[in-house]
Amino acid sequence: MRIWIASDHAGFLLKTHLKAWLTSKGYEVVDIGTHSEESTDYPLWVHRLAQSFPPEERGILICGTGNGVCMTANRYSHLRAALAWNAEIARLARAHNDANILCLPGRFISSEEAEKAVEAFLQTPFEGGRHERRISQINQLSI
Amino acid sequence: MRIWIASDHAGFLLKTHLKAWLTSKGYEVVDIGTHSEESTDYPLWVHRLAQSFPPEERGILICGTGNGVCMTANRYSHLRAALAWNAEIARLARAHNDANILCLPGRFISSEEAEKAVEAFLQTPFEGGRHERRISQINQLSI
Repeated sequence: MRIWIASDHAGFLLKTHLKAWLTSKGYEVVDIGTHSEESTDYPLWVHRLAQSFPPEERGILICGTGNGVCMTANRYSHLRAALAWNAEIARLARAHNDANILCLPGRFISSEEAEKAVEAFLQTPFEGGRHERRISQINQLSI
Repeated sequence: MRIWIASDHAGFLLKTHLKAWLTSKGYEVVDIGTHSEESTDYPLWVHRLAQSFPPEERGILICGTGNGVCMTANRYSHLRAALAWNAEIARLARAHNDANILCLPGRFISSEEAEKAVEAFLQTPFEGGRHERRISQINQLSI
């Protein structure tokens, strides 16, 4: 399972940190960009990731608050993007929402807490059951 | 401007609190439901709100972590739903993302912090400029 990762300028430093940390743990990381701290537009990087991302893999998206990338990612029916500001929220995003994308607030989370959130995101299984029914309703816009 | 509000069971108590608080401040509140703490499926309430919500008004969605309602709301191209765990994130959701929906984590925010987040959400104008360009890119899935 590969980890896809993308950010805007505000998430670039945390993306760089997490990419090195994930690689050191043996994960294969697909880095979509951005590639510097130069100002850029967050939707571009989300669209680039979304267009290639296999939904059974895992993705990480980072902008200043996490909301810009999360909003954009959830435009896609094959992405379930959750915004986590700590490890417990990341754990629940997997257990209850079967999230395949973790969004992080680059300007509002420490590297240490981000590592813990990513670890919870990668290691927590989906609980299924009543949550399976809810997941299936997310894309039923005319329910 | 009306305030539309919806939640699942995990957000019911905070929804009840915020509805009374907003009404006491003179806002007209449209309460979509749910109407008790009985277990229910969060997407149902989001879809009901989304199908009637005029995008120039404001909405508040609440579930346990906020991620289930936020994921579902952002399936709709006329909603820009931001998840805020404090007032500063809510302020930035308006200033940078022109959010028209505020998602709150009912099980991870106090009533006091939720009030502050809603106040920031209702009182902060969109900054426009470079953020206007980014907002327009959110719905351009083939960019």
